[in-house]
Amino acid sequence: MAGLKVYFDLMSQPCRAVMLFLKVNNISFSEKPIDLRHGEHLTEEFGKINPMHLVPVIDNNGFILTESDAILKYLTAYYSVASHWYPEDLQNRARVDEFCAWSHANLSLSASGFFEQQVVEPHAKNIPVNQEQLRKFSAELDGSLKQLESIFLKDRKYLAGDDITIADVMAVCELMAPYASGYDIFEGHPKIQTWVELVKQRLNPHFDDVHVRGPLGMVFAKFNPSANI
Amino acid sequence: MAGLKVYFDLMSQPCRAVMLFLKVNNISFSEKPIDLRHGEHLTEEFGKINPMHLVPVIDNNGFILTESDAILKYLTAYYSVASHWYPEDLQNRARVDEFCAWSHANLSLSASGFFEQQVVEPHAKNIPVNQEQLRKFSAELDGSLKQLESIFLKDRKYLAGDDITIADVMAVCELMAPYASGYDIFEGHPKIQTWVELVKQRLNPHFDDVHVRGPLGMVFAKFNPSANI
Repeated sequence: MAGLKVYFDLMSQPCRAVMLFLKVNNISFSEKPIDLRHGEHLTEEFGKINPMHLVPVIDNNGFILTESDAILKYLTAYYSVASHWYPEDLQNRARVDEFCAWSHANLSLSASGFFEQQVVEPHAKNIPVNQEQLRKFSAELDGSLKQLESIFLKDRKYLAGDDITIADVMAVCELMAPYASGYDIFEGHPKIQTWVELVKQRLNPHFDDVHVRGPLGMVFAKFNPSANI
Repeated sequence: MAGLKVYFDLMSQPCRAVMLFLKVNNISFSEKPIDLRHGEHLTEEFGKINPMHLVPVIDNNGFILTESDAILKYLTAYYSVASHWYPEDLQNRARVDEFCAWSHANLSLSASGFFEQQVVEPHAKNIPVNQEQLRKFSAELDGSLKQLESIFLKDRKYLAGDDITIADVMAVCELMAPYASGYDIFEGHPKIQTWVELVKQRLNPHFDDVHVRGPLGMVFAKFNPSANI
C-alpha cells in the first residue's frame, strides 16, 4: 500500500512524539497500532519490519526507518514542513542535534527508566516496585531535569532556541512518562513548567489527544490524578 | 582568537571521532587538550565553556557546540566536506541519523561502560574491578555487537550504506575502547572485522595516530597486547 505507514503504541514516548508531529503538521498516514502490552512488537512478523522489535517505525512507500530522532528529521525534510521544526541555519540546526544527542543518553534513559520501574515492570510482571532501581532512576532524572532547567532553558524560550523544534516535541513526550507516574517534574523547575505550558499550547489539541486521552491517561489517573495537565 | 578550537582528550571515544574526522578532511584547528585523568574538565574555567563538563567541545569563532554527533554533522556542512560523510540524499542521511540515535543508547553506553569498569574506575580510584558491573556491560556490549553484525552490517559495506559516513567514524572509535581493554570485539563477528579493516584503511594514518599512538595505546599494551590493530 502506498503512502506513509506508522507503527506505534501511544504508551511509548517516542511514538507519541512522532504522532504529535504528524498531527500538528496535518500529515496523513495509515495507523499501524502495535500493542506493546500484548507483545505485538515481539512477533516474527513485526521483526521483519524492525529486527530491533521496537516502535516507532515508519514505512514510507517501502522506505522503512526506525528511531524517532531519525524519523522526525526525515519527515521534516520529506514533507517540507515549517522550517522552525528543524532549522536549515547551521547553528540553529546544530542546537537541535546537540539536544537530541544529549537526550538519548540522559533525559530519555532516566525518564523512561523511572516509568518502566514505577509502572511497566510491576504491571507486566505483577511484582512490587523495585525501590532501589526506582531511586536510581529518580536520581538520574533529577540530574537530567536540573540540566534542562539550568542549561538548555537558561536563556532560551524553547530547548534549542526561540522557536519550537522537534527537540521540544521529543522532550515533552519523554517527560510526560515520569510525570504520569507520579514524579513531580515541575518542583523546583519553574522554567520547565513555563516551557511545558508553551509547548502544550503549540501542540494542542493533539498534545492532550496522545497524552491525557491516550493510554497514558490511565497512568495519570492512577499515579498522578492531581497532575496539572 | 579566530578559527576553530577543539577541546579534547584522546582517551575519550567521541573526542577521537572528532579529531579523526578533522584530520582525515585536512581541516585546521587549534588543539585545546583537556586532561580528563587530571580532572581538567571539572574546573570552573572549563565549566564556562561547557557547563556539562564534558569533552569534546568545539568553539568555532565563538559558536560553542557540544556532543560529537552534533559536532560532526555541523562540521560536514560548515566545511562542505565530501558528501559521502553525511549524505544530502534524504534516505541516506536518515540511515546515518538512525545509526547515531541507536548508538547513543546502545553501543555507546555498553562500550564505554565496559571501558570505564575495566580500565578507568580501577585506575582512577585504585580499586579492584567490579566484576558484577563488568559482566553487566559485557552482556550489553555483546548484544550491541550482535545488532551491528546482524542488522547494520547485514547487507551493507558500511554502517549506513555503501560508503563511509560519520556513523562509521563514531562507531569505530567507540569499539576501540573495549577492544583495547581486552574485549574481543571480533570473535563471532566476521562482518565487524571486515568493516573495521575497511574503516581503518579509509582513516589511516590518522586512525593509528589517535588509537595506537595516542593514550589508548597504553591501554592496548596493558590489556590487549596481541590486538590486531
